Amino acid sequence: MSDAAALAHLLDLEQLRALGQRYARAADDRDYDAMAELFHPDAVIEGLRGTSPIDEYLAAAREAPPSFEASMHVLGDPLVELEPGADIARLDTYAVVFQVNALVGGGNMSLGLRYLDEVERRDGVWRIRHRVVRMRWATS
Amino acid sequence: MSDAAALAHLLDLEQLRALGQRYARAADDRDYDAMAELFHPDAVIEGLRGTSPIDEYLAAAREAPPSFEASMHVLGDPLVELEPGADIARLDTYAVVFQVNALVGGGNMSLGLRYLDEVERRDGVWRIRHRVVRMRWATS
Amino acid sequence: MSDAAALAHLLDLEQLRALGQRYARAADDRDYDAMAELFHPDAVIEGLRGTSPIDEYLAAAREAPPSFEASMHVLGDPLVELEPGADIARLDTYAVVFQVNALVGGGNMSLGLRYLDEVERRDGVWRIRHRVVRMRWATS
Repeated sequence: MSDAAALAHLLDLEQLRALGQRYARAADDRDYDAMAELFHPDAVIEGLRGTSPIDEYLAAAREAPPSFEASMHVLGDPLVELEPGADIARLDTYAVVFQVNALVGGGNMSLGLRYLDEVERRDGVWRIRHRVVRMRWATS
Repeated sequence: MSDAAALAHLLDLEQLRALGQRYARAADDRDYDAMAELFHPDAVIEGLRGTSPIDEYLAAAREAPPSFEASMHVLGDPLVELEPGADIARLDTYAVVFQVNALVGGGNMSLGLRYLDEVERRDGVWRIRHRVVRMRWATS
Repeated sequence: MSDAAALAHLLDLEQLRALGQRYARAADDRDYDAMAELFHPDAVIEGLRGTSPIDEYLAAAREAPPSFEASMHVLGDPLVELEPGADIARLDTYAVVFQVNALVGGGNMSLGLRYLDEVERRDGVWRIRHRVVRMRWATS
């Protein structure tokens, strides 16, 4: 790998890492415009309640009344597969989602999730094009 | 961004990331000298119990009897805003603080915090000059 | 530090970071072949149940019936000590291990661990040669 390629690779890794952190904040702020920016328009999410195109996924999320007063998505560092110079990366990210003060009945819930993402660079910008969400555990 | 600027930027990101991890260890070791090294002398903390200059904050922390036998500050990766070459960065870091074995009454407590830091490079060293601590949740 | 040395250093940090994430996945998948790849053959682990050479440690882990249905090792970013160009690094990593659905008696357990690793590059590959595991807390 040339120096220029190594440098570009390292910058790519930092952008991919920031993508996850921006997702966490968008989710916790329920900022669905910010969240839409992190996915390509033709992205698909295989979530905990089925598979949806991103626009349907976000529309459903906007309309759903929140279940908890607040949430916090705490992410581990992603394990990234990216060939230097490639425009597609695979990210495997562990997340613990803390959900606090259920609006019906009270109480908290924590979830252990694993995000398996295909992230693609288009026009110089990395965005998610496919996400699989796997629930590893849930406690309340 | 030139190659030299990109390289310097990447090294800055690694130093900023290490700053948070050093804070976590200093806090968990109750090593207030190590903690003082991470802040500029004129730094201000807007903490959970009000706003203080760093020296007052650390003096109060040194004098306070510990509430728990041990703590662990587990931090997510910071979301960093830093223009390449700039001497001021903004860091937004999620933290889960596990506090174990309360010295009065026993029991554990967990806190979800968000650190919003202004970090400044002076004489080549990055240190925090302003920190806002926001509590997102607490469970016991 | 020359540009070439800085670039090599940054690539080293990314490899060291990925090592921890690969460990987490190997542990949670109970993939002991993948785990063996992350340690030098002469590595030693000072674990929670005593000190063992890695091959004995892995043999015992393979034979032990699992205690829980699933686990998730969520790691903070490692604090890395590495002189640019050196072949030995020290990593200090915080980990929260979530263990779910005990196979006898049910219930969950969480552990707060700290991994203190000596990692060595041999033939261009970073692997752990000495690990100390310290338990900071456990809750169930």
